[in-house]
Amino acid sequence: MFRDTAGAVRLKPAELLVLFAVGAAGGLIGDAAHVQSQTTQYLDDSVPFIWESALWFPLLVGLATASAAELRLRLGSPRPGFDPRIAGAAIAALLAIYAITALVSDQPAGPATTLVIMLAVLVAAWLGGGTPAFACATAAALLGPAAEVLIVELELARYSPTADGLFGVPTWLPALYFAFGYVAARLAELAVARRAAAP
Amino acid sequence: MFRDTAGAVRLKPAELLVLFAVGAAGGLIGDAAHVQSQTTQYLDDSVPFIWESALWFPLLVGLATASAAELRLRLGSPRPGFDPRIAGAAIAALLAIYAITALVSDQPAGPATTLVIMLAVLVAAWLGGGTPAFACATAAALLGPAAEVLIVELELARYSPTADGLFGVPTWLPALYFAFGYVAARLAELAVARRAAAP
Amino acid sequence: MFRDTAGAVRLKPAELLVLFAVGAAGGLIGDAAHVQSQTTQYLDDSVPFIWESALWFPLLVGLATASAAELRLRLGSPRPGFDPRIAGAAIAALLAIYAITALVSDQPAGPATTLVIMLAVLVAAWLGGGTPAFACATAAALLGPAAEVLIVELELARYSPTADGLFGVPTWLPALYFAFGYVAARLAELAVARRAAAP
Repeated sequence: MFRDTAGAVRLKPAELLVLFAVGAAGGLIGDAAHVQSQTTQYLDDSVPFIWESALWFPLLVGLATASAAELRLRLGSPRPGFDPRIAGAAIAALLAIYAITALVSDQPAGPATTLVIMLAVLVAAWLGGGTPAFACATAAALLGPAAEVLIVELELARYSPTADGLFGVPTWLPALYFAFGYVAARLAELAVARRAAAP
Repeated sequence: MFRDTAGAVRLKPAELLVLFAVGAAGGLIGDAAHVQSQTTQYLDDSVPFIWESALWFPLLVGLATASAAELRLRLGSPRPGFDPRIAGAAIAALLAIYAITALVSDQPAGPATTLVIMLAVLVAAWLGGGTPAFACATAAALLGPAAEVLIVELELARYSPTADGLFGVPTWLPALYFAFGYVAARLAELAVARRAAAP
Repeated sequence: MFRDTAGAVRLKPAELLVLFAVGAAGGLIGDAAHVQSQTTQYLDDSVPFIWESALWFPLLVGLATASAAELRLRLGSPRPGFDPRIAGAAIAALLAIYAITALVSDQPAGPATTLVIMLAVLVAAWLGGGTPAFACATAAALLGPAAEVLIVELELARYSPTADGLFGVPTWLPALYFAFGYVAARLAELAVARRAAAP
């Protein structure tokens, strides 16, 4: 096991890099859905763009993914058992919800928000992980939308008028980040469990 | 075990109250989605309202939930095993479908109905429960829409013109109630199994 | 076991017929969703129609289903274990995705395609089946859209202008066929496993 001086399990640099890359790639895919559906619009075109996203967006999502994963391991021992299918399904579930938010962003906020919350609850019930995973998800649900409120305040980007009911960001955004926290926590567990499964 | 004089398992008053409250709360959440998306519209404003719903609506859904749960236990022995995550996921799945009906209510009835039916089948296959659960779901799929047809006939509420293809109620409504029946039956089982799991 | 001269497991004629019928029925249901949502439009009305579909469409889907199932068994030993609930859930999941494609066909292609791809990944992760199932799904994802490109080229039918970004067929079509391949492969396994489960 890769551990810090206190003996707790930690992510290795290569694992953090993979989680960063997975997060950045997922951010690009999800953000493209938001931009193409006009859920979001970038206001500052002076920065480089990758696909539909300003360069800083996938970097932030990658950092958030690696940070949430690292937080997960600081909060308690990860569950054993490595199954790459769970990793793939968890990422796919999150990107499916991300795409759904793009598709419902012009619909009434009430049913759209209810749907995203319930899908996030289903992801949480499916992936589980107890208090540490719940803590990661709650932190993500608070910090993620707060960071996006700041992005809106800085006039770097904005949400469409049909999806800005929570201080300029969508009412379903905390639920999307909540699901993100559960997925990142599960990926952290799987990254550690993979070491034992490796030949 | 709490049993009637014939020895069959019965729900305790406190359990029935919890199921009533869960059903009433879920009814409020789902009905808000229907009202906000203009899937439904209340025509009689002379009664008190809670959130978006006429007072009688959450009461009816709460009663229906407790009744379906009680019916489930009269139809056979419940399965053992208590897991609160299943209860949460079952409720979330049903409310997700409820929200989806709100979001597709202005779409062509064919694909909307196919989607809701297939999601109800997935809920049934996931929660299982054999003949008793199927009977609860079938009873709900018949009686629930029938009660709503009556509500429409009494001009207390109406569905939008894009979602009234089945005697004034939506063609997807039986499937929504079918899923509701499976969820209520599972909650009844979990309520009984919780007794053995309690400390 | 029903085997060919080389000893490999094969589908019996009755099993192939059931798979053909399941595929044809599913094709009719899904195609009705596409026609009713104007995702697709038949251009040649000189052939007989069943429900919303030209006669040849359900026949082709039925043939594709039986062919994919037969391919699955030629690629390796099927997994044991018969559970009709899995068969029902797999078919329902595929028809749910089919209906979703109808409902999102007038939305921006980006988020619609991301959603369908992620749902297909979830179906693949759920049903599993290793390399043989993946091969069936990949073959379906290539040959299915190719056949539909031909249908469009022959001016027998066309997709709506909002869903024709891939040589005249939708960008989400390969993902729908990919999920179809996984479901057909799983049905093939269940058909064989059912023999052992039969009384």
